Order: sequence, then C-alpha cells, then structure tokens
Amino acid sequence: MTLTEPTTPDSPTTTPPPVPLVPSVLAQGLTVPKGFGDQSLLSPRPDAIRLLGGIPDPSALPLAELREALGEVWDAGGAAASLQYSGSHGFEGLRGWIAEREGVDPRRILITNGGMHGLSLTVQALVERGAVVAIDNPAYPLFLRTLELVGARTLPVPVEPDGLDVEHLARRLADGERIAAVYTVPDFHNPTQGTLSAAKRAALVELAARYGFVVIADDPYRELRFAGTDQGRRVFFDSEHVVHVNTFTKTLGPGLRLGWLVLPEHLVDVVLRLRNRQDSHSSTFVQTLVQHLLVTRPGWFDTTLGRARELYRHRAQLLVAELRTQLPGRFEVTEPEGGFFLWPRLVDDSVDTAALHKRASAEGIDYQQGEFFITGPGTDSARRLRLAYGDRTDAELRTAVGRLARAFG
Amino acid sequence: MTLTEPTTPDSPTTTPPPVPLVPSVLAQGLTVPKGFGDQSLLSPRPDAIRLLGGIPDPSALPLAELREALGEVWDAGGAAASLQYSGSHGFEGLRGWIAEREGVDPRRILITNGGMHGLSLTVQALVERGAVVAIDNPAYPLFLRTLELVGARTLPVPVEPDGLDVEHLARRLADGERIAAVYTVPDFHNPTQGTLSAAKRAALVELAARYGFVVIADDPYRELRFAGTDQGRRVFFDSEHVVHVNTFTKTLGPGLRLGWLVLPEHLVDVVLRLRNRQDSHSSTFVQTLVQHLLVTRPGWFDTTLGRARELYRHRAQLLVAELRTQLPGRFEVTEPEGGFFLWPRLVDDSVDTAALHKRASAEGIDYQQGEFFITGPGTDSARRLRLAYGDRTDAELRTAVGRLARAFG
Repeated sequence: MTLTEPTTPDSPTTTPPPVPLVPSVLAQGLTVPKGFGDQSLLSPRPDAIRLLGGIPDPSALPLAELREALGEVWDAGGAAASLQYSGSHGFEGLRGWIAEREGVDPRRILITNGGMHGLSLTVQALVERGAVVAIDNPAYPLFLRTLELVGARTLPVPVEPDGLDVEHLARRLADGERIAAVYTVPDFHNPTQGTLSAAKRAALVELAARYGFVVIADDPYRELRFAGTDQGRRVFFDSEHVVHVNTFTKTLGPGLRLGWLVLPEHLVDVVLRLRNRQDSHSSTFVQTLVQHLLVTRPGWFDTTLGRARELYRHRAQLLVAELRTQLPGRFEVTEPEGGFFLWPRLVDDSVDTAALHKRASAEGIDYQQGEFFITGPGTDSARRLRLAYGDRTDAELRTAVGRLARAFG
Repeated sequence: MTLTEPTTPDSPTTTPPPVPLVPSVLAQGLTVPKGFGDQSLLSPRPDAIRLLGGIPDPSALPLAELREALGEVWDAGGAAASLQYSGSHGFEGLRGWIAEREGVDPRRILITNGGMHGLSLTVQALVERGAVVAIDNPAYPLFLRTLELVGARTLPVPVEPDGLDVEHLARRLADGERIAAVYTVPDFHNPTQGTLSAAKRAALVELAARYGFVVIADDPYRELRFAGTDQGRRVFFDSEHVVHVNTFTKTLGPGLRLGWLVLPEHLVDVVLRLRNRQDSHSSTFVQTLVQHLLVTRPGWFDTTLGRARELYRHRAQLLVAELRTQLPGRFEVTEPEGGFFLWPRLVDDSVDTAALHKRASAEGIDYQQGEFFITGPGTDSARRLRLAYGDRTDAELRTAVGRLARAFG
C-alpha cells in the first residue's frame, strides 16, 4: 500500500525526526521511590538481617493446605472452571464467606488483588484530581505513592498512641479546611503500632458524614491481635462514608494477591465499574483455591490465625526484651498488641539517626528510618525506627539487636 | 474524647443531614454495559448454546500440568517464596522466557494481569484526559470501556479484510487531525477476523513516529494461527512508538490473569511506576507455576499451542461448513486463519437483524450482534454476526447453526 505523503517541496528526500511520545500528566506525576523502598539503602552485607517489611512468616501461611486444595478441587472436576473468566465483583462464595464474617451484605464485598489495589481503586473512584486528602502523620509511605495517581494534596494529621488525632482534624474542618478523604490504619497502625480507639472511630465517621468525605480505613493487620482490646469495625460498616480496605496478604500470603473492600452500598457499582476496566477480575485460579479452603474447612481460618497470633506475639515480646536487655536505656518501647511493627523512640536526642543507620547497615541490620514516614511537622518520627519482626526468627531477632547495639558503639 | 462542635445557636439540637460522597469525574465517566456484555440479552433457554466470547477450550488449557507444576515446585522447596511479595516488573525468569521468544530485551517485558490490564495501563500512561484515540471500526467494545478511564474521544478508522485502513488514517492526520494513540488488533481481528498486512504494519509505525502517537497493538490471538501467513511483529518491537499488548489468556487460561506488555525502552519506567501504584505486582503464586512450566519444560508451550491450533482450526472449518450446509446462500463467509471469531455477513439486506437475533435467542443460540462493534459510520457491521467457536464442541456448533437456521424461518 502507499501512504498519502505530506508534500515537503524544499527537502523532498528528508525524513523528519520522530516525534517523541509524551506520558500523561497522571504518569508524569509518579515519582521514583526515595527513602522507603529505595533498594540502594539496603545493607551491603550478604548476611544482613532485614527488619524491613510487613511480611508474614512462611510458617504461618497455608503452604500445605494450598496443595491439598488444588488436589481436592481438581479431583472434584473444578480444574476447568478455575482457568476461565469470572465476574469483576469476585466469587460469590468467597464474598459470602467474607460478608458473613464481617456482618455485612455480600453485595458490599468487592474482591481485589490485595490491599494496595483496594486503596488505589478507592482513591481513583472518590478523590478528584488535586483534591486534599487528610493522612496520618506519620503514615504508610506507599499510600502517598497511591495518591500520586490523582495528584492529591495532603493534610497531615498527627497520630497519637490511640491513633489519628480526630479532634485535630475536626478543628481543621471547623476552620474551613475541606478534604475528599481521610486515610488511616485503624488497627496496629503502620508505623506507630497503636489502635484507633472506639470513641475516635465514632467521631471520625460522624465528621465524614458532616463534611462529606470518605474514610479510607486500611486494615490489613486487624486479624493479628495478640493483646489488648479490639476497638470494633461495626461503626465503619454502618457508615455510608467509609471504605474498609482489607486483604488476605498478612494472613494467607502476599503472593496470592487477594483482598477485598467493604463498600457502602451506594459505591458498589461505581467501584465495580472502575475495577472492571482495570484488569477485569482477580485470578479465578487463586479465588478457587482460597474459597475452597475457607468454605470447605469450617474453623480452619481461625485456627490458622490462632497459630499466627501466637507466633507474632512471641516475636514481638522477644524483640522488645532483646532491646531492653542489649540496649538498656536507649529506646522507649511500647509492647505491640498486634501486627508486625515496633516503633521504638531513641531516648537520647543527641543521637545522629542518619549516622546510626549507616553504622547499623554496615553491621548487617536493615530497618526503616522513622523519617521516611513523616508527612508534616509536629511528629517525633525522626527519632524513631520501624522494626518489622513478622518474618524473623528468634535467632535473627537476637542477632539483629546485637548488631544494632554495636552500631551504637 | 470530645469534638470541637461548630456552634449553631438557632437550632442547637439538630444534626445536619449527611453530606453525600461524590464519585470522581473519572468514576462518573464509566458507563453501564449496553449491547456487548449486557447479560439481559442472553437467551432465556437453559440449553442455550453461547457463541459469545473469545474463550479458549478447557481441553486446550494445561489443567493437569498446573497440578504437576505445583507438586514439583512444592517438592523442590519453592512453596514459601510463591506466597510472598515479588517485584512490580514481574518474575525475571518469566520475563526472560517471554523476551527470548519475542526477541527483545527482558527489561522491555512488563508482566500484567492479562490483556485488559495491559490496555488500561497503556491508556492511562499515554493518553491525556480528553485526547483523541483512533480505533478500529468495528472494534472490540471492551477497549472503548477502557478508554472511559481517561475520557478519551475516538476517531473511528475503517477495518478492511487486511486490517485497519492505514491510508485512511494517514489522510486524516495529513488533514490536521491529531491523536494520542491508535488501537488495533493486528492478528485475527476482533471482530473482523482479518490480519493487518506487513505493509500496513510498517506504514502505521512510520505514521506513529511522524506524528508522535502510540500504536496500541492488542494481540491476544497471535499464537493461534492455523492457516495463512504470519505478518510479523518485528516492526512493532523495533519501534519507539508501539506498545504490544499480550497475554496467556487465550493460550494457558483467562483465569490465571497473566499477561505482558512489550514496551519501548523509554516507557518501561513510567508504566512500571503506574503498575506498582495499582496493585503492586501480579500474583507471585501464579507466576511461579507458569514460569515453572515454561522454563523447566522446553518445547512444552509450542506443543500445547500445536494441539490448540488443530482444535480451533477444526472448529472454525466445521462452523463454516455448517453455515454453508444448513444456511446456503444466507451468509458471505471467510474462513478464519486463526483466533476464535467468525464474522459472517448477511447476504440479504432486507433481513431485520434485531428480529433475527430475537428469534435466534428464542431458539437457544447466543451470538454477538454486529452492531455492538460499530464505532462510526461507513461499516457494514450491522449486517454481520460475531460467532465465537473456541469453546464449543462439534455437536454444539452443529446444533447452534441448526437453531440459527430455524430463526430464519
């Protein structure tokens, strides 16, 4: 075939230089990871011990059960269906199981590819480009990256031992500040370990209704409570202004990429349509196996969680004890009530945290520096470390604290 | 805790009504499916035969092999890693295998959750809100829904027997039209079955460089050629202006949700950052099993494809033969060279296609009406049917055509 060539009479034989592609404004707004997630900060030692991420221990995940599940599903003739298309909403049986556990209508459950996916769907569905989102200070840094999808501005709200300072937020709103959303981790906060109190949950939901914003309750650790008192989720599920983001990542394994949203009824269709246009649906194969385990083995999930909670309780207590023994007087430490994180504060304000991290890295321990989590002024996060203990053995935790002690010199 | 209440002196005891949440402009632009994908159009008969979707046959998918793969990976100690986090770029071994097959640098391969995911990533990364995207006329309707993510306007370009009318597009561009992207299905076009000729591929890529737009080459069926001559992909891979969208959906199963993009080097980082913010990464579990099959069984993928092509060739030929035998003179039919679709044209222009579809539905055959694929004027698609034969047995195809014959009366 021939093309209609634009005539260029003065230089008929010259091909013009290619016109480069320009990424969209959305894409241009996505930053290169700095601080949190920057691989160049890792210890160069091959035997380095990483207390870096909210990672479940392999021994707490259903390795053997998944193999059994596949065998059972295949033997029962379910192989073919597990490799075909399925609905964007997610498996009915899986949604039903989750809905019964959460105490909500199954229609309100939307299956996702894990917690991060739930966050990005919620942000894209409810936050207008350039709007303001109130966030924890300090906050989970990867949520800030999610916000880049909509170029949101942030309003940092201090986090107290019992979670987000809701009264601070109320004052800002009363002063005229307007927000599209508030983001918080209500249970075993990342990174501050605390849990949002029941009173604050109620107050936050009331504010959301009064001012017309959505509460994005990011709750991946909520099943991993091993001490203290649960502060409840009913108030979230009863609100028209809360999206509850959850996942099997910390309980059955990050590698599955399987989570869910509990949406208020009025948002189900709009988030479902968005999800449909992204990647159609979550893996039928993965949903088949997980649904099989949850539905055909009553009590199995709770038994699995029970063992996991014991493991993480033990590791949290061990880490705290080691810090107190090997680094007496160096840190203010609060024993975690659940989740994967310890957020100790340096007692001596003259310690150079950057230099400490450098020495620790040379000694062979990796941790997240508190400054990576800061979203605004008025936090002591720069004086803290985030130590993740979920996937570290007793011996590793002891050795890691020993290395940290050497870093203090 | 107490909240700072705004004072309302005239009615201190009244709670104001909740302020409702407003979905984002993005979310509001997502339409409810009409025509294609509208479940209400399905035949009410329980024994209806669906020739509806581009669905691979279960017998062509690796049901037994996936079970074996899981056993082998588990026995070799790979279970734990398969349930953990992995990188956004995708497994190195999987990308390496694909890259070798495609003949490109592994860095240019980005693992996705299937073809639709690749399309939505590409559109969001490269199409500015409200920009113009040139699309096939007729086109795969679900791509139009993907375009809703960026509120794109469309420029329909006619599709000829050898694919997109590139000369038509060239004239529009020479006349001053400017586009951000062109979307086409180069191999076994959906719905028109044709393949974009090698000459047109070269011309399209040249236009893209000259005018600075991206070619979105959506190529899920390309491995399923059972007749005719391959028109090549090298010209796509050698261009800085093409994103090649591919998937294991039609070859190993839609339920896996596993695909890939071949990106020009300069777009890898930006699309990777976008993907990272959506849902972190594709399932480690699924990647582990598929990589194991592809890497540890040399030749296995091609053997699997060989069987699949034979099966689909047989079904395509059978469907064509049945139409010619049971409905002589009713349709102009072109034998497919690959893929899953037949796109027959009604010979008699006086046939009422809506009434025909209604009678066919009552007889118990479901197909896609040609009008669902129309994106602009100047196509005869309304006089056509899309018949999908991939997952229908010989007996079902014969019976379905018999029912269609009865619908003609």
